[in-house]
Amino acid sequence: MTAVVGHNRTRALLRNAVERELSEIFAAQTAAAEAYGSEFSHLWGLAAEHVLGGKLVRPVLMVEIFDALVSESAPEASVERESIIRIAAAIELLHYSFLLHDDVIDGDLVRRGRRNLIGALLDDGSARGECDQRGALHWARTGGILMGDLLLAATHQIFARVDLPHAVRIQMLDLLEHTITESIAGEQLDVGLSDGLIAPDLSTVLTMSAHKTATYTFELPMRAAAILAQAPQHLERSLTAAGYHLGLAFQLQDDLISTFGDPELHGKDPYSDLREGKQTAIISYARMTSAWPTVESEFGNPELTEKMGARLRALLTECGAEKFVRGLVEEQTTALYEVLAGTGSAHSIAPGARRVLLALAAELEERRS
Amino acid sequence: MTAVVGHNRTRALLRNAVERELSEIFAAQTAAAEAYGSEFSHLWGLAAEHVLGGKLVRPVLMVEIFDALVSESAPEASVERESIIRIAAAIELLHYSFLLHDDVIDGDLVRRGRRNLIGALLDDGSARGECDQRGALHWARTGGILMGDLLLAATHQIFARVDLPHAVRIQMLDLLEHTITESIAGEQLDVGLSDGLIAPDLSTVLTMSAHKTATYTFELPMRAAAILAQAPQHLERSLTAAGYHLGLAFQLQDDLISTFGDPELHGKDPYSDLREGKQTAIISYARMTSAWPTVESEFGNPELTEKMGARLRALLTECGAEKFVRGLVEEQTTALYEVLAGTGSAHSIAPGARRVLLALAAELEERRS
Repeated sequence: MTAVVGHNRTRALLRNAVERELSEIFAAQTAAAEAYGSEFSHLWGLAAEHVLGGKLVRPVLMVEIFDALVSESAPEASVERESIIRIAAAIELLHYSFLLHDDVIDGDLVRRGRRNLIGALLDDGSARGECDQRGALHWARTGGILMGDLLLAATHQIFARVDLPHAVRIQMLDLLEHTITESIAGEQLDVGLSDGLIAPDLSTVLTMSAHKTATYTFELPMRAAAILAQAPQHLERSLTAAGYHLGLAFQLQDDLISTFGDPELHGKDPYSDLREGKQTAIISYARMTSAWPTVESEFGNPELTEKMGARLRALLTECGAEKFVRGLVEEQTTALYEVLAGTGSAHSIAPGARRVLLALAAELEERRS
Repeated sequence: MTAVVGHNRTRALLRNAVERELSEIFAAQTAAAEAYGSEFSHLWGLAAEHVLGGKLVRPVLMVEIFDALVSESAPEASVERESIIRIAAAIELLHYSFLLHDDVIDGDLVRRGRRNLIGALLDDGSARGECDQRGALHWARTGGILMGDLLLAATHQIFARVDLPHAVRIQMLDLLEHTITESIAGEQLDVGLSDGLIAPDLSTVLTMSAHKTATYTFELPMRAAAILAQAPQHLERSLTAAGYHLGLAFQLQDDLISTFGDPELHGKDPYSDLREGKQTAIISYARMTSAWPTVESEFGNPELTEKMGARLRALLTECGAEKFVRGLVEEQTTALYEVLAGTGSAHSIAPGARRVLLALAAELEERRS
């Protein structure tokens, strides 16, 4: 019990350190933006509000793994704490930049039940009554595109300037480049699937999930920690593998929860994935069964009724799609445990980092409902 | 005559060197993209086609000024030719990234009379017949957003990695940050003006023109040249001032040509600015005259007839708006000559760099019609 409290306390301190860093970054940018007029500084101010309200999962994960790795090894040249926190903050900026462009692309105005930045800009524009709804929406989406660009640039500026040994910086820049390429390729795949330009077979859908989300949410923080701790390459490879399995398991679990979970618990519209025609592993499996003609007739129907939604959901269970995807989550979790145990070709991950990953796996197990 | 031929030959050689560098960058990215499927590598291939077809005005300007500056001074530690050409190429990538997001924001499918990247993706999507026109347009715009992001990231990667003395790299990163902030603030202002959220007074419109275009088109290449040549700070300041005047003069001249120029010569729809309701200095001036009620009644009318367009154009001349803006161009040109002459508080610019800028000013004078 004391260990758990101690662990939570450490995490809260880490969160605060990253949040303080982000506050400083946004305060400096908002002040600099004032030279360009009130609309521009307002945009920065809004972005600060949205980023600082987040859980900072990715930066905290990075610093936790980093701390575990350095406490168990003695890196040749240690990296200053300040640099670690700054890179952790940059990872959050990158995350938010991706979210913004994703919301622009999907036309979303809401995220996790509250207005996103674009929604907030739309409300501003509409309230001022100086333009019609169309103009206000255009203004709001433009703000989303431009702030995404600014934060993508800010992420790179931090990676380029932070105080790091030359070889470490190059590895970090390689990692950033790889992450951005893979995440954007995943986003393109996601849109191609939704727009019907790319065939939604199961392997494509799984690749999309891994690239679009797992790469930057799990692999990026874990590999960054390994590089900054100057851990041996085999450890970085094991962490990459662990990040892949965790990321994919979380994404598949998310799909399961959206479709089969209890709306009282997850707080989302229980049929939104079905209404939007989202191409998930569940749907890819269903497509190969005799239930498909019935599912297909209502899949992607924005007017889907509650009753029909419940019927589709039952069909997706009956045809075996639910069970199949739960099996995929099991497979990814088992693969994760194998990496953590250092069985097969994987090298073992030091106990401290293993504890962080096991805590994440436990979180995954708890999110079943 | 021989000098002009020699000069043109040097410029053609520079252009080729930058184009070769860009070709290599795109070839490497397209090859790496293949790991993520044909849609992703196709997107890179299309971007390559569009960038390589350009005139490379900005990179050539940078290298010409750089060469002039180093031939007249002896920098402490010289920067490798390879690095110079690589940064010049990065400046073109940044330009194209801005163009792409600008086209997404404006909903444009055409640039300089041919399909832009988004238009080309739309044609692809439509031709495949796998989705409706709405889906194909969504796919195309998504491609524009994502490629803009990739090129913004690629620009930063080059600035962060290119072989430069530490102090020079920091100055270059500062310049890149300043350029991006100012260009994006200008873009936001432009959209706010078009959407009617920002009042279109003359000073706001002039600020928008300077920030949105002049900053990255003229100031960026000229300041980059000064930093890379390790020229004294007063010279960088003079070049910044020269870039501002040239950039603003070019932008105002563009507005004049679009509204009053001969369509046979400039090849654009002669009334498109009026139809789109573009907020230019011409319109800001007209707003303060008694001609405004008549101009206003048709300004921004997408159905504007040829006859009404000609009438508006005549009114904009009669009310003094044309003359006023021609006067502004004169003022900027005079200010440029003052900087070049080193009068007032400005320090003089060395003869070689001055020649490059005078050639640009001459181009500006020739573009009158």
